[in-house]
Amino acid sequence: MSITRTDLETLDTADTLAPMRGLFDLPEGVVYLDGNSLGALPKATVGRVAEVVQAEWGGGLIRSWNDAGWMAAPGRVGDKIARLIGGAPGTVMVADSTSVNLFKLLGAALAARLGRRVIVSERGNFPTDLYIAEGLAALLAPADGRGGHVLRLVEAEGIAAAIDEDVAVVMLTQVNYHTGAMHEMGAITRAAQAKGALVLWDLAHSAGAVPVDLAGCDVDLAVGCGYKFLNGGPGAPAFLYVAPRLQDSLRYPLTGWLGHAAPFAFEGGYRPGAGIVRTMVGTPPVLSLAALEVGVDIALRAPMELVRSKSVAQTTMFVALLEQLAGPWGFRLVSPREAVRRGSQVCLAHEQAYAIMQALIARGVIGDFRAPDILRFG
Amino acid sequence: MSITRTDLETLDTADTLAPMRGLFDLPEGVVYLDGNSLGALPKATVGRVAEVVQAEWGGGLIRSWNDAGWMAAPGRVGDKIARLIGGAPGTVMVADSTSVNLFKLLGAALAARLGRRVIVSERGNFPTDLYIAEGLAALLAPADGRGGHVLRLVEAEGIAAAIDEDVAVVMLTQVNYHTGAMHEMGAITRAAQAKGALVLWDLAHSAGAVPVDLAGCDVDLAVGCGYKFLNGGPGAPAFLYVAPRLQDSLRYPLTGWLGHAAPFAFEGGYRPGAGIVRTMVGTPPVLSLAALEVGVDIALRAPMELVRSKSVAQTTMFVALLEQLAGPWGFRLVSPREAVRRGSQVCLAHEQAYAIMQALIARGVIGDFRAPDILRFG
Repeated sequence: MSITRTDLETLDTADTLAPMRGLFDLPEGVVYLDGNSLGALPKATVGRVAEVVQAEWGGGLIRSWNDAGWMAAPGRVGDKIARLIGGAPGTVMVADSTSVNLFKLLGAALAARLGRRVIVSERGNFPTDLYIAEGLAALLAPADGRGGHVLRLVEAEGIAAAIDEDVAVVMLTQVNYHTGAMHEMGAITRAAQAKGALVLWDLAHSAGAVPVDLAGCDVDLAVGCGYKFLNGGPGAPAFLYVAPRLQDSLRYPLTGWLGHAAPFAFEGGYRPGAGIVRTMVGTPPVLSLAALEVGVDIALRAPMELVRSKSVAQTTMFVALLEQLAGPWGFRLVSPREAVRRGSQVCLAHEQAYAIMQALIARGVIGDFRAPDILRFG
Repeated sequence: MSITRTDLETLDTADTLAPMRGLFDLPEGVVYLDGNSLGALPKATVGRVAEVVQAEWGGGLIRSWNDAGWMAAPGRVGDKIARLIGGAPGTVMVADSTSVNLFKLLGAALAARLGRRVIVSERGNFPTDLYIAEGLAALLAPADGRGGHVLRLVEAEGIAAAIDEDVAVVMLTQVNYHTGAMHEMGAITRAAQAKGALVLWDLAHSAGAVPVDLAGCDVDLAVGCGYKFLNGGPGAPAFLYVAPRLQDSLRYPLTGWLGHAAPFAFEGGYRPGAGIVRTMVGTPPVLSLAALEVGVDIALRAPMELVRSKSVAQTTMFVALLEQLAGPWGFRLVSPREAVRRGSQVCLAHEQAYAIMQALIARGVIGDFRAPDILRFG
């Protein structure tokens, strides 16, 4: 029996999250299905950013580092993000980009597992994760060209089997950018730890979109992105998570002044700060951070179980409608059909994917194209 | 003969840069002498940031990466900064923080000088520069604890003598944050290169404040800060410079997707982009970058020779007035008395420096305190 417009309207009427749409400033006539690439603008961001620019920077000037809480902002917003991903207070820091945070945590993890030479990841992981690992391995390679770290790339289903006693770190993106497939965080974490490896999860497509329980899964390390489901704005600063049990032993390769135990003592030698603070490097981008905080505050108002059930209902309906309406047109579902294995996106392959996405965008339906042939809808 | 208020008013009347003060939004009743820590708010920034938030992010959404020029912004603003520091187009990229950029360039420089084990710097250099070098050296140290890189710290006047054939990189901040003393960029660069070393200049207290001629001095590498004299806002993204002759041979330790030759091809392996592009890592912070561009545009409107001559006149007058008015009160001039050896700041030592600065700030005269006993006025 086919799905009708009335069916969809009935679902919309019953949607308890629907009023939250009013918190965002979405252009008329646009169906925005690309919040997994750049989240929409929260209405409150406009005023908050203006306040930071005019009152805090313009009026407060240098005094705002203390008086307006700028110095504390990376940790304060980090604590808020922690609540979204199952971390305790003091486990998340907002800093740098996802790529730079990956470098910091991966570098610390390899140093904490000296003698183990393998980094396990998924072949189809987001490229920057693999590039960062490749660059770090090249950096750490002995000058004589022997030995060094190896990046062991395997298919999603082969990850557990690829973890042996040579593995220093298992580095995975929980929800694959290209397929929307979601890994079982708990099972993989346990498998890695059983072999003595550390796990590093990239939550770029998870935070704010799917339930994440870092503490419950006893995850070691994680990074994530502020500009997708957290609606922090273009190029919003990223975040990182370090389990409390690791915080005081890890040493990060990027040793900037704000990670120092006493940055304003201007000591000659580096002494890492206590806890999560030592993951900081340089001065945080205050304007971008203020925008991120507004997005995170909104995410905290939406109970994650409701977000997830709505997301599952939407992606399931999207797949069903696609098969009903576009069945004969050569689309192939790339995302897992089982909702439990899928993040908050549906990916389709089509040989004309680029042209189709351009045509959709021209009609106000915004998803994105990912080379070579993927249509992605968030 | 003592300096009178009339003398100062006469200088103000003759000041051709005075109208530029009107471009900034400075609070009533504040004498702001801390632009070397956080530059003031340009009036135009308010509207520009609001436009980026509302029209570009809110209205354009993901399309603005191309349509609003976000993707090109780091290089576009970099080219503008290049004009301020004597670099050709395509030599400067806006990215990350100063600390992270130091890590990238220092890592690339050490790789380009394999076999040389020494990094020369100034003992009183800004701590983050030294911390980053220390962290990188620890990262690159062979696992057996032997060898590795050494940070050779010397006093300002001993730098040329400390450069020998073991030196890979000479890393210096042109204007010292703690004293305002300025190095001779050309002479030190030549001395380093004569021994086969690379030079890496930190322009945190130079860009927008003193004449810098990177190409004329044949400098290899440089980094700098966006939130001081460039008036880019709190935590504005930083920049880096790479001489054209080095761009295609250097390999950076941070190999993020935006530095890839084809970031949106999502290739499995890292291939560095051509030229300055390969210095990019993650997604740029668009809101903070937009604010920086406004500040840089203003700096480009002020001829550097006028900025410098005004700065020299101001700092010289400041020292003269200090001696006239506060002579007996135990202040010691830390900055060089010769204007040619001084950046755009005056630093004084006093055993009650902290309390004095608090009292000044309470009266609306904002400079800053730097531990243990320095009063700094920019």
